[in-house]
Amino acid sequence: MDIKKYLQEKGDIVNKALDRLLPGENEFPQKLHKAMRYSVFAGGKRIRPVLVMASAETFGGLTDSTIDIACAVELIHTYSLIHDDLPAIDNDDMRRGMPTCHKVFGEALAILAGDALLASAFDVMANTHASTDEERLLLLKTIQEIARAAGSTGMVGGQVLDIESEGKDVAFPVLEYIHIHKTGELILASIRAGAIMKNAGDKELEAMTRYGEAIGLAFQIADDILDVEGNKEDTGKNVGGDAKREKVTYPSILGIEESKKRARELTDIALASVEGFGKKAEPLKEIAKYIVARRK
Amino acid sequence: MDIKKYLQEKGDIVNKALDRLLPGENEFPQKLHKAMRYSVFAGGKRIRPVLVMASAETFGGLTDSTIDIACAVELIHTYSLIHDDLPAIDNDDMRRGMPTCHKVFGEALAILAGDALLASAFDVMANTHASTDEERLLLLKTIQEIARAAGSTGMVGGQVLDIESEGKDVAFPVLEYIHIHKTGELILASIRAGAIMKNAGDKELEAMTRYGEAIGLAFQIADDILDVEGNKEDTGKNVGGDAKREKVTYPSILGIEESKKRARELTDIALASVEGFGKKAEPLKEIAKYIVARRK
Repeated sequence: MDIKKYLQEKGDIVNKALDRLLPGENEFPQKLHKAMRYSVFAGGKRIRPVLVMASAETFGGLTDSTIDIACAVELIHTYSLIHDDLPAIDNDDMRRGMPTCHKVFGEALAILAGDALLASAFDVMANTHASTDEERLLLLKTIQEIARAAGSTGMVGGQVLDIESEGKDVAFPVLEYIHIHKTGELILASIRAGAIMKNAGDKELEAMTRYGEAIGLAFQIADDILDVEGNKEDTGKNVGGDAKREKVTYPSILGIEESKKRARELTDIALASVEGFGKKAEPLKEIAKYIVARRK
Repeated sequence: MDIKKYLQEKGDIVNKALDRLLPGENEFPQKLHKAMRYSVFAGGKRIRPVLVMASAETFGGLTDSTIDIACAVELIHTYSLIHDDLPAIDNDDMRRGMPTCHKVFGEALAILAGDALLASAFDVMANTHASTDEERLLLLKTIQEIARAAGSTGMVGGQVLDIESEGKDVAFPVLEYIHIHKTGELILASIRAGAIMKNAGDKELEAMTRYGEAIGLAFQIADDILDVEGNKEDTGKNVGGDAKREKVTYPSILGIEESKKRARELTDIALASVEGFGKKAEPLKEIAKYIVARRK
């Protein structure tokens, strides 16, 4: 299969749905909705929503509610980028080749646009189509999964550790905690959410969890490597930022070659985890390979 | 009935439940959980969760899920205060007689503690007890209600307008928009959520909506008046802050006496709205009176 074409097609579905789900730029308060849309449509790779969809398709068909949940995850991801970029946190001026939200709209509006995107993610999820008791039960489980992943023991917890570790000599387990939580949790939740929505069994969910944990960590290691080896044209952000901020990364602790080896090992674990699902899991396999091979 | 005793008793229930629902200070990452708990237990009046409970009790008994929803609303309220107090927004040093979250934990952690509290609110709601199809349906409706109220066309929208209006000559409708959205929406959602959880009928929900809209606006007018007439000992924050920041308020546009008159009129509307519910609505009536009479 052509993974780039697959990502493009699914990404288009997500973009159309996000455009439908978000308030328009002319809707009051316009400036807020402009700021929200600016960051949501700043050219993200849509990896997380595509993972929700690829996971759901492994266990059933794509429905409107799958797409809504996929969009909700992207809204949460976007809010986290806006807040991470703030002067008080990572102080990044560029993201995806464009000035960051606070650079364009000011700090106050960037904070509030992030807040509104997080709330809107749950608004979208709670409002998605669920017409039977089973669907409602699975939807509540999905919301649980995503809310936990976004919270203090998930993504935000990882971000806090990341900040606290800047400029410090941190041990490898701390680095792993940061990566698994800051990036891994929402990726894992995306994959699990797709499976939960389709009522996947316990064993199937376990396999998807192994897959998700592996690619979640691999994704962040690949990000770390790109910050060293990538270029601004491909990545759309200033490279070398991690070193400048004395951020602890895989390459900074293990070196580039060992980091690449770990990423490959994790890809192998991911591929093996979904082997049992046969042809239906082909997109998941291709995404796992793409995640470590990507140049942005 | 003794409203102060009622508020105290219900507040105790909320405080105990919040303590149970939030991760402990020793749970990793400790600093984050400390910051979250610092602001949640900084002595809030718990008006919003009490309104959830008083509304639910008008149509049925208090259950664990009612209390969870009440706590979720307070978590959202607390997150909004932490973010509002940030240097980039209202730049407030004091809140409820204590240094604000960013003053104690720094700006980065305050932003992230707010984010985590917002996510945790939805975590709490999605995880609350709902064992029948009807309960799950009503729970999803409740989450919808609260997510919308917290979002860009609700609370955050009001906050954006508030910031944009600072130092400007704004018209009365803009002031009303700010008050209704920044404060009113979450108060209204609290009242509606309690009723929705108990499957109140359309007419009953309409009456509760009228009540909620009236006290939501009255609450903010009372806040504006307290910022002029209150004292630091009672309110726990620096008074006169609105004037200093050239914030548009009811007293600044209508004057103190006319503002008080409006607050009284709104209280009368609130009382009339719930008249039909008889003795069961007594707490709602007493809360409406308390909201404009309070000194903090």
